Amino acid sequence: MDENKIFLSESEMPQAWYNINPDLPVPLKPPIHPGTGEPLGPEALAPLFPMALIEQEMSMDRWIDIPDEIMDVLKIWRPSPLQRALRLEEALGTPARIYFKNEAVSPPGSHKPNTAVAQAYYNKQEGVERITTETGAGQWGSALSFACQIFDISCEVYMVRVSYEQKPYRRLLMQTWGAECYPSPSDRTEAGRAILAEDPDTPGSLGIAISEAVELAAKDEGTKYSLGSVLNHVLLHQTITGLEMKKQFEIAGDYPDVIVGCVGGGSNFAGFAFPYVKDKIDGKRDIDIIGVEPTACPTLTRGLYRYDFGDNAEMTPLLKMLTLGHKFVPAPIHAGGLRYHGAAPQLSLLVNEGVIEARALPQKEVFEGALLFARTEGHLPAPETAHAVQVAIVEALKCKETGEEKCIVIGYSGHGHFDLAAYENYLSGNLIDYELPQEEIDAAAEYLPNWE
Amino acid sequence: MDENKIFLSESEMPQAWYNINPDLPVPLKPPIHPGTGEPLGPEALAPLFPMALIEQEMSMDRWIDIPDEIMDVLKIWRPSPLQRALRLEEALGTPARIYFKNEAVSPPGSHKPNTAVAQAYYNKQEGVERITTETGAGQWGSALSFACQIFDISCEVYMVRVSYEQKPYRRLLMQTWGAECYPSPSDRTEAGRAILAEDPDTPGSLGIAISEAVELAAKDEGTKYSLGSVLNHVLLHQTITGLEMKKQFEIAGDYPDVIVGCVGGGSNFAGFAFPYVKDKIDGKRDIDIIGVEPTACPTLTRGLYRYDFGDNAEMTPLLKMLTLGHKFVPAPIHAGGLRYHGAAPQLSLLVNEGVIEARALPQKEVFEGALLFARTEGHLPAPETAHAVQVAIVEALKCKETGEEKCIVIGYSGHGHFDLAAYENYLSGNLIDYELPQEEIDAAAEYLPNWE
Repeated sequence: MDENKIFLSESEMPQAWYNINPDLPVPLKPPIHPGTGEPLGPEALAPLFPMALIEQEMSMDRWIDIPDEIMDVLKIWRPSPLQRALRLEEALGTPARIYFKNEAVSPPGSHKPNTAVAQAYYNKQEGVERITTETGAGQWGSALSFACQIFDISCEVYMVRVSYEQKPYRRLLMQTWGAECYPSPSDRTEAGRAILAEDPDTPGSLGIAISEAVELAAKDEGTKYSLGSVLNHVLLHQTITGLEMKKQFEIAGDYPDVIVGCVGGGSNFAGFAFPYVKDKIDGKRDIDIIGVEPTACPTLTRGLYRYDFGDNAEMTPLLKMLTLGHKFVPAPIHAGGLRYHGAAPQLSLLVNEGVIEARALPQKEVFEGALLFARTEGHLPAPETAHAVQVAIVEALKCKETGEEKCIVIGYSGHGHFDLAAYENYLSGNLIDYELPQEEIDAAAEYLPNWE
Repeated sequence: MDENKIFLSESEMPQAWYNINPDLPVPLKPPIHPGTGEPLGPEALAPLFPMALIEQEMSMDRWIDIPDEIMDVLKIWRPSPLQRALRLEEALGTPARIYFKNEAVSPPGSHKPNTAVAQAYYNKQEGVERITTETGAGQWGSALSFACQIFDISCEVYMVRVSYEQKPYRRLLMQTWGAECYPSPSDRTEAGRAILAEDPDTPGSLGIAISEAVELAAKDEGTKYSLGSVLNHVLLHQTITGLEMKKQFEIAGDYPDVIVGCVGGGSNFAGFAFPYVKDKIDGKRDIDIIGVEPTACPTLTRGLYRYDFGDNAEMTPLLKMLTLGHKFVPAPIHAGGLRYHGAAPQLSLLVNEGVIEARALPQKEVFEGALLFARTEGHLPAPETAHAVQVAIVEALKCKETGEEKCIVIGYSGHGHFDLAAYENYLSGNLIDYELPQEEIDAAAEYLPNWE
């Protein structure tokens, strides 16, 4: 390869999103109503989402055109570079080629605006005046704030308390883009007040924050809710990354043997891996597709494949997914964006079918990888992203042993500019790894609803 | 233009830096020894800088080849995009075309690594084991930390106290890249201890921090000093930005009528403007080339064109430049990188000759521009960069009145990810503008040395 970085021109950007629904190896179980057990119709979601997104959620069309108005905003930072990590390779002494698809170049610094912009656009089209949402590390909240600012919609963000406190700069970022941001659980919702009454010192969780945001949207007609991961419309908006990457690998004359990304709700991972999942299912290519999660929240590696609520307060429809149970509250690790009890149904299905491999990492090891990356490639990965970086390092070191010249690509989902307190924690030796005993997982599973 | 952003491929990157020395409209006065008044020979600088940089400092060659080893590191993030600010244009309702050359894409988030990488390389070549430096807002310190990490050199950074306290994340960034960072004035040097004895609560200044870093380098053989601005070798390393931009404007089929950048020591501004200064001097083009500084540190607009020390403690050679006097301590504005009493001799000469125009802005107005940019273009400018953004806005609004379709380009020197406390200050209405009475400027001028 002659170039370190492969850029596409804007005119080469994919013009449609990829919807994996029609290509899944077994049919997806539909979302169901928790009361009736019946599959959910579009009307049931209408209080929360604009109809265009509900249609995408349920669509069986393989390709969904990206409206020009969305493309115009994506072009603020897209297409994102596919970059070769030559210095990391050299430091490892590996014969492997390591690439990273760099989504950190967006204004909010992550892959999240790929869907935030699309969602804000469709909401605006349908006259929505305010959008509520939750955020973990603040990547999603800041992305939605940015998108709402662009399309002139009010934005209210419920941020998991532990991240709100660890990452004041993300809150300031949201405010700079004109949004309101509250620590969750808050006293602004019934769901929040109930949790606070039980445990005033709770670190919060994505599940709780979702309950708060959903409650507000359900109560008010001009307000809709926006989700930064898990749902199919979110996943498919993210596929622009994987579709760009395919074109970039064609230009590079290369093709990935190992694809590795971090998994919270699964949208980052789905976005850049699903276009390759299709090649794998079709038998075109033998690819290792690896989702990485924290051992403190091991949804894919230790969860059950069951119907469960998306949120703590049992307000959402039931989704068939890998889950630790909606009452599970993960330890306050620095990768706040990976602290979710469930995972996207499509991703869960593919892990369950063995198409996608899952691995869990403790955070000290993750930061070891992050620091090596920062000190060789310069760029500082977000703690979430560092999960993928570390597995790429592990795989590259395997290649060093076997002599295999594999092509490994990292879903570089975001930068760590607002996570330097976490780096300081690691550098000063104060980072804690959390053991998660099986009893705790079993206890959380008790709260799973009884639907198969 | 079909594309929002114009990328060059790595193979299109400039292969040589541009040295403006042979093209200046009047000869540059040499640096002189403060004791003798004699022009300085290369030997006099040898305790501080490696010989290769001293040669560049004094070179009259118009073009200086960029070594491959430096190019390889620059390619981690270069070439940087030239981007059209369509949304900002739309918000202003201006017929002007506004572009920005985005240097925020580097790992440290600014233009500074363009020279940090080159300096670290030449130091390494000559066997230097440790580099000391000063930093204002932390842009330079983090860039040098990054570069020293890449070339495996120890790095010690003296950070202006007010910035050290306002921007803990920049310090953490330096530490992540393996550097040591101290608030200046510190008790680690004689210069620092003398200042602290006089005024224990001083906010510090770049001049003081330079004294500390220079003192350490002068005392120890394996240690050299590195300067992030002002000197000619720094300016010429930065010209890669302006040279890239020229190629990018050719691709865009456009040419700037107005070039605007912020000025601290002048290297950012020189880097992207000097290649155009040549076109202006040659009479090829009529361009408005505007350097912007804070009213709290109005070196170019209210300084004297005199020989002065580069540092507070009178340890450096004397440079003929626009200066407020080396004892001037600017108010603690958020644009820490612009708090320098002097300006690069080449830039000073060009302002003095009327080739380059200078303007000063108060910080509230600067943040007004920053916020408008962030809310339209998404990207958050650093407070320093926002000075250029605001003047571009002013010029674009003039075009709205006159109907002129000018091409305006902003030197987008860095992002504000580590400056969110400053944004919060502005958003909450707590930002202060500092008036600078003429008596204070006159008083500082008293300390100017008596060399013409």
